[in-house]
Amino acid sequence: MFNSIHEECGVFGIFDSRISELANLAYLGLHALQHRGQESCGIAVNNDGVFSHYKGDGLVSEVFTPEKLDGIGPGNMALGHVRYSTTGGKDINNIQPLVIRHIKGNLALAHNGNLTNSDEIRRKTELSGGIFHGTSDTETIAYSLVDDRLNSANMREAVEKTMGKIQGAYSCVIMTATSMIAFRDPNGFRPLSIGRMAGGAYCVASESCALDAVGAELIRDVKPGEIIEFTKAGMQSFETHICPKEKSTMCVFEFIYFARPDSVLDGVSVHHARMKAGELLAKEHPVEADVVIGVPDSGLDAALGYATQSGIPYGIGFIKNKYTGRSFIQPSQMSREDTVRLKLNVIKETVRDKRVIMIDDSIVRGTTCARIVSLLREAGAKEVHVRVSAPPFRHPCYFGTDIDSRDNLIACKYEKAEDIAAAIGADSLGYLSVESTHKIAEEADVCFCDGCFTGRYPVPVPENHTKNKYDIKIGDFG
Amino acid sequence: MFNSIHEECGVFGIFDSRISELANLAYLGLHALQHRGQESCGIAVNNDGVFSHYKGDGLVSEVFTPEKLDGIGPGNMALGHVRYSTTGGKDINNIQPLVIRHIKGNLALAHNGNLTNSDEIRRKTELSGGIFHGTSDTETIAYSLVDDRLNSANMREAVEKTMGKIQGAYSCVIMTATSMIAFRDPNGFRPLSIGRMAGGAYCVASESCALDAVGAELIRDVKPGEIIEFTKAGMQSFETHICPKEKSTMCVFEFIYFARPDSVLDGVSVHHARMKAGELLAKEHPVEADVVIGVPDSGLDAALGYATQSGIPYGIGFIKNKYTGRSFIQPSQMSREDTVRLKLNVIKETVRDKRVIMIDDSIVRGTTCARIVSLLREAGAKEVHVRVSAPPFRHPCYFGTDIDSRDNLIACKYEKAEDIAAAIGADSLGYLSVESTHKIAEEADVCFCDGCFTGRYPVPVPENHTKNKYDIKIGDFG
Amino acid sequence: MFNSIHEECGVFGIFDSRISELANLAYLGLHALQHRGQESCGIAVNNDGVFSHYKGDGLVSEVFTPEKLDGIGPGNMALGHVRYSTTGGKDINNIQPLVIRHIKGNLALAHNGNLTNSDEIRRKTELSGGIFHGTSDTETIAYSLVDDRLNSANMREAVEKTMGKIQGAYSCVIMTATSMIAFRDPNGFRPLSIGRMAGGAYCVASESCALDAVGAELIRDVKPGEIIEFTKAGMQSFETHICPKEKSTMCVFEFIYFARPDSVLDGVSVHHARMKAGELLAKEHPVEADVVIGVPDSGLDAALGYATQSGIPYGIGFIKNKYTGRSFIQPSQMSREDTVRLKLNVIKETVRDKRVIMIDDSIVRGTTCARIVSLLREAGAKEVHVRVSAPPFRHPCYFGTDIDSRDNLIACKYEKAEDIAAAIGADSLGYLSVESTHKIAEEADVCFCDGCFTGRYPVPVPENHTKNKYDIKIGDFG
Amino acid sequence: MFNSIHEECGVFGIFDSRISELANLAYLGLHALQHRGQESCGIAVNNDGVFSHYKGDGLVSEVFTPEKLDGIGPGNMALGHVRYSTTGGKDINNIQPLVIRHIKGNLALAHNGNLTNSDEIRRKTELSGGIFHGTSDTETIAYSLVDDRLNSANMREAVEKTMGKIQGAYSCVIMTATSMIAFRDPNGFRPLSIGRMAGGAYCVASESCALDAVGAELIRDVKPGEIIEFTKAGMQSFETHICPKEKSTMCVFEFIYFARPDSVLDGVSVHHARMKAGELLAKEHPVEADVVIGVPDSGLDAALGYATQSGIPYGIGFIKNKYTGRSFIQPSQMSREDTVRLKLNVIKETVRDKRVIMIDDSIVRGTTCARIVSLLREAGAKEVHVRVSAPPFRHPCYFGTDIDSRDNLIACKYEKAEDIAAAIGADSLGYLSVESTHKIAEEADVCFCDGCFTGRYPVPVPENHTKNKYDIKIGDFG
Repeated sequence: MFNSIHEECGVFGIFDSRISELANLAYLGLHALQHRGQESCGIAVNNDGVFSHYKGDGLVSEVFTPEKLDGIGPGNMALGHVRYSTTGGKDINNIQPLVIRHIKGNLALAHNGNLTNSDEIRRKTELSGGIFHGTSDTETIAYSLVDDRLNSANMREAVEKTMGKIQGAYSCVIMTATSMIAFRDPNGFRPLSIGRMAGGAYCVASESCALDAVGAELIRDVKPGEIIEFTKAGMQSFETHICPKEKSTMCVFEFIYFARPDSVLDGVSVHHARMKAGELLAKEHPVEADVVIGVPDSGLDAALGYATQSGIPYGIGFIKNKYTGRSFIQPSQMSREDTVRLKLNVIKETVRDKRVIMIDDSIVRGTTCARIVSLLREAGAKEVHVRVSAPPFRHPCYFGTDIDSRDNLIACKYEKAEDIAAAIGADSLGYLSVESTHKIAEEADVCFCDGCFTGRYPVPVPENHTKNKYDIKIGDFG
Repeated sequence: MFNSIHEECGVFGIFDSRISELANLAYLGLHALQHRGQESCGIAVNNDGVFSHYKGDGLVSEVFTPEKLDGIGPGNMALGHVRYSTTGGKDINNIQPLVIRHIKGNLALAHNGNLTNSDEIRRKTELSGGIFHGTSDTETIAYSLVDDRLNSANMREAVEKTMGKIQGAYSCVIMTATSMIAFRDPNGFRPLSIGRMAGGAYCVASESCALDAVGAELIRDVKPGEIIEFTKAGMQSFETHICPKEKSTMCVFEFIYFARPDSVLDGVSVHHARMKAGELLAKEHPVEADVVIGVPDSGLDAALGYATQSGIPYGIGFIKNKYTGRSFIQPSQMSREDTVRLKLNVIKETVRDKRVIMIDDSIVRGTTCARIVSLLREAGAKEVHVRVSAPPFRHPCYFGTDIDSRDNLIACKYEKAEDIAAAIGADSLGYLSVESTHKIAEEADVCFCDGCFTGRYPVPVPENHTKNKYDIKIGDFG
Repeated sequence: MFNSIHEECGVFGIFDSRISELANLAYLGLHALQHRGQESCGIAVNNDGVFSHYKGDGLVSEVFTPEKLDGIGPGNMALGHVRYSTTGGKDINNIQPLVIRHIKGNLALAHNGNLTNSDEIRRKTELSGGIFHGTSDTETIAYSLVDDRLNSANMREAVEKTMGKIQGAYSCVIMTATSMIAFRDPNGFRPLSIGRMAGGAYCVASESCALDAVGAELIRDVKPGEIIEFTKAGMQSFETHICPKEKSTMCVFEFIYFARPDSVLDGVSVHHARMKAGELLAKEHPVEADVVIGVPDSGLDAALGYATQSGIPYGIGFIKNKYTGRSFIQPSQMSREDTVRLKLNVIKETVRDKRVIMIDDSIVRGTTCARIVSLLREAGAKEVHVRVSAPPFRHPCYFGTDIDSRDNLIACKYEKAEDIAAAIGADSLGYLSVESTHKIAEEADVCFCDGCFTGRYPVPVPENHTKNKYDIKIGDFG
Repeated sequence: MFNSIHEECGVFGIFDSRISELANLAYLGLHALQHRGQESCGIAVNNDGVFSHYKGDGLVSEVFTPEKLDGIGPGNMALGHVRYSTTGGKDINNIQPLVIRHIKGNLALAHNGNLTNSDEIRRKTELSGGIFHGTSDTETIAYSLVDDRLNSANMREAVEKTMGKIQGAYSCVIMTATSMIAFRDPNGFRPLSIGRMAGGAYCVASESCALDAVGAELIRDVKPGEIIEFTKAGMQSFETHICPKEKSTMCVFEFIYFARPDSVLDGVSVHHARMKAGELLAKEHPVEADVVIGVPDSGLDAALGYATQSGIPYGIGFIKNKYTGRSFIQPSQMSREDTVRLKLNVIKETVRDKRVIMIDDSIVRGTTCARIVSLLREAGAKEVHVRVSAPPFRHPCYFGTDIDSRDNLIACKYEKAEDIAAAIGADSLGYLSVESTHKIAEEADVCFCDGCFTGRYPVPVPENHTKNKYDIKIGDFG
């Protein structure tokens, strides 16, 4: 809730065999994915080859008034995207889906993830005369697709060629004049689910909760390295030459933090995985206490798991003010600490005179956590034991998660948990171990990337990583 | 969440001995009371006798931009109000606080509740030449206060006289040039809490969660029939001649539904009362099941109580989409049923193949409840047993709660719980008994008005009750 | 254009014998009167006795979206108002029409003008228990009407009684359940025109340009002291006991500055009166020159008159930037002088190397005029002779015109025209004489109030005149 | 005012030797060019090589709030653009300036005009792997510039190469990391003026009125075929190999209709040219009459010229409602005819019982003109003689003017002026001859493109010309 960890995208595509109001369904799908990106959004509609689209800054419900939705009209395919962007990157040209009008046919592209070799591809493209409007990786993928398409029999082949060039995390959906194609990097860093509607339409979404929102049934997920093509002939799968030999390495934060608990990713219920994380946490870091409470919203499931495993009663410890939306602006005189109080209030009845176990999903800078601990003490808690349903993260992510700089991370300042406990004013502190994170989805065939905890990444990462690198002065065209 | 029961107001007042940025504190207090009224709001500031104010339609965070807050400037007192209004009553003139500029001094008034004899007072006032801009009871109280003030030594005496005339529900706060006065009807239908800040300022708020929001400590509540006056000399209590002989009769829906769980009203924690309601419900309507889930947000506490009492595990059954704010407009093609799905999604993992007890705080028309039951079945629930933490309501409220018309109430259509269960598709249905509602706060000296359940009201009620009665043609001035 | 002289209101009423979309016509009528008040506006619709209304801050086109217009629905009468308000008086409660819901029938009131004895009436009303929400005179009139109605056979009689009590400037239109009544003070300070539509509906408007806007034909004006009642039986005139013995005294600024040139007030074309003022100015203050230019918009007609009379060619000297609307905000770094340049640019071709006569309708502080003179010189004008189509104003207005304080008026700082000429950098300066202002409409039976020029007022004026007088501390209700 | 002829762009660039608040100056410059495009706008700022920019739909004053202006910060160069777009082309990706982030350096581009060979260039670029986000010609120019830059010593050389490839109308300004470059097509279809500020900064603007707005002095215009480069070393001119042998052919509509009368283009005052057009019109189409009036705003200058030449008095015949901005929405019940009345009202005094000569700058469909003629007759005009200060246009423009389709043009329906006169209800009608249009700027060395009148174009034009050609299905990428 107060963390500065951010997912960077959500995608939603829908393919129908006939023309209908797919923009509305894309709207609903994106609305269900809103938690994956609140900065901007867009929808492109394909009406038998003619593309129309609209994009803007803001929430789905702000950007898409009924008039705007009507304006992009009916179609037989639609593609939508929600986006979070880092501070310097609020460029209007980065809003997705990217729509390309090309003599060989229109193309729309929506991408979730982050490439590790986009700089090289971009540089090469630029030196051969290509121009980039924005700063996102997505434009790099678009260039590659177009280039490969010119030398391929069809777009599906072009996608496979492009997958051979780009590296890193990408869960993508594209629309051509006649087909919708979904593809996912061989590591499967980011999720991508396939659904089918009663009427026969197919959907692809970053999370299954978006399938629920449009009334589609989850069939399965796009497999790492797989290409799925939807045409009037139906859905067809293509295994690519880059299909992984080993297990995939989905981002563990999708389960711990980003995804909605009602989503099922690669066959694993997010709610279940969080409950499991709570149970494992209870085994690793038990403590005598009177009540287990979770920090809303994403700490609740793990708290219930901890309570179930430990036998200590589950309690409702906090109320979040649900009117603290985008328009809420804190009066300037107030301190940052006060902000926490405005959004979160303790239910004193639950914690007064009690030994409290407080479950959160992460600690970033520690200031928010410290403030919450102090609110609990003000409300009469006798002891406050903080348990975190993830390991401490200390390393950057190269695959689409925006983590605060190392200078700000409390786990980089202090090595030992007891030092962090002291810093946030808790009586004790326990993090889930890295080993345990790999068990939260053990019933499914899912492995995880744990690079942000360990610094060991499943694929090579760039040496010099700078945000907003294209915003700095890098040459002189004059 | 989907009910058409509505609270009609929240009030917040603050009195300081020196001039400071009280508008900001009123803003924060109202923000914490936003759940009591989302239609309009206003703040009036008293700067040593000079009043400035601003009001508008919308949420506190929408109406009060930083510029608007600055515009009403600093002061030594501030008074705020949030309001819900029934469809026909969205008159700009009804937005509170009511600010009266009078030759004898300025007056601002904020009111939560509903009078039962305002028609008579209004008629009398009008026939002696008074004019009303709006249609609210509040203007009636203002007239009475001004009239009584002209024949009293001070405003406190005027308030007592007015309390002798007006009947029904009123929790009011007024500002004069030099004092803030809070008063509450002898039945205490609506809550009114007093807080003190570290610096010595006093606050009055409809709920204690607003005191928490500004960092004030809850001292106690204004007692039924009591007048509290805040002046530079401090806080003073006046028992009035109308102070109740018997116990007060607070609206039971404040505990069941309206108030925030983190509030403490008349000494009773709302969270605790709801847990208790859940426990009593478990005793009255036990059933064999695998999991107990609550409908968010107000069903969660009772669900935890039911689970605790019954020993059946508590589960997290639903996710609410937190981006479904005011700007979210459902595309016109969708059915009303779909709306539920957009706002609420089932966590399938929690309910699949299970016998589910679903706790809600009320059933109004039954359509929403029926839809939620069907969502649970679609998600694989084997049985769905609905338990409601309140009795069926079948009678109008005359004290400030806006209940749907009898024609729409499912409990008026069907007499027996099993018939309602059949209508909503549940395997069984149990309501909390009226007797039990009186036990949810038994540790405190609080009794309840149960008129909406029983049709028996603690004070006489008007015979002909029509909403928006002043909007119909009732004469001809021509 | 840059003056701080302000008209305070425009009114528009329409009466039809059948229910139709009168809110739309009121919208169009108000749009044509927008120049008389840009701060706020409102429309009330009478649908066979049931009133609905909407009001808000902003231009007619901003406040009334199609949805809002539809929301107040069809009716057989409608009443609208546009308002300018002085800085301190932006109280939402002052927006008109005032709608009163009274047991004897609904009443709506729209008023243009300013009373001279409203303080006394208000004080008396307050001391007998009346309460005022706003600070405007209009509420005083409403109180008087209601009070008189309770002791009269009908509203028309009540209006006559009220006209016997209130003093100063008032051009009013009211709606009752069954009739629309227009009345005008015996001096006729502010205009009020009557029109008839092809279908038989009647309109009343502050200016005839609003009648043109709805396709109504101007019949005549409401006479000073007259009451006009519109009922299903038609239009009926009532001469009142306060009908003037002598000639009326309309505000001369209506002709010189406020009204639109396409309006005809009391039988006199505003355009014609301004041309005439220009001609008289040419006779009084001739000068040798090469071109006559007017400062847009209100100086153009007089410039054409001056050119015609003098034989010196008329030129187009300035272009106004028509996109400088309400949303245009000048960057903070710019000086106030620059503002003039942003709004007004000189057509160099017209003035280069020429002796220029520049006609404006008024000089308030002199800073704007000085800046325009310097722009002309920068553009190459050899000489700049300023001619003003009104006398210097040096005295306050008590009848509805908001004039800058005496401290700011350049004509109060300097007695002689040549000193003002020096201050604004002009080669010469000539004001129209007071005598001549009385000749600009001599063909009609219209005389003028020239109080702001002479300090001699046609009716007694209050001794202590303070803007926003109800905003100051005047008592202590505590 | 009611015509459906549209200019498509305005550009403004500013180069300073030091960092300052140039975004503000760009804002003011664009505000002065607002008449050239009201659909969208953008500003890019170059702060020593680091580019920031903001763009959006709407007027300059709507898109650029003070916060947005501050957000793009200070710099030593700024480039702005206002844009009109045809219905199908409201693509967010078409808003200018186009900002390209390239490994060799950033580039921003603003363009006014229309290429005649962009299709070919685009096709070629696409087939070699280039991708286009939008549908505008500007992106084509950008591609060419980047490609040429990779094979040139500097950007100035690249510009010259690009000028050798692109054909049609282009008045462009670009920013590189270290320089600002302005260039204009060899025909000089669209204007481009150079100004210098007191502090030494240079400006380039589509019209000189924008130079006035920022306080810059007009030096001269960029010559057809010329490149002007601004660097810290100052301003330098480069004659290119494509510099015209013959006279340039500026768009005559710039003088007749588009440009502001206070602008001076290629040494000719627009106001003067319009006066001249009126004089020539008086010579070609004299008629006995009592008054000459112009249709505001662009008919006024020609009317004054006609009056001067003919000796018939000039009159002010119409008032335009200045509040009819973008937010003004005509109620749906009204006919299109009524719209004219809402925006334009006749000053009856001017035309009653008179023979009227009404000057307009163009007749497009004829419906608006017919309505204005009928308004004059309703106001009492005895005769209405329409004179148009341009020839009838019957042919498409390929150089940046958006003319209605031939099916709608009244001059394509009727060959003879008398037939058009009958259609619009005028007593007579006279158009300026094509020969005379070439005389309106004869004192300067300016010739005109008269293609829209004659169908003879100064450069080859495409055979198949379709608006929004990239929106149709032109291939299948699938």
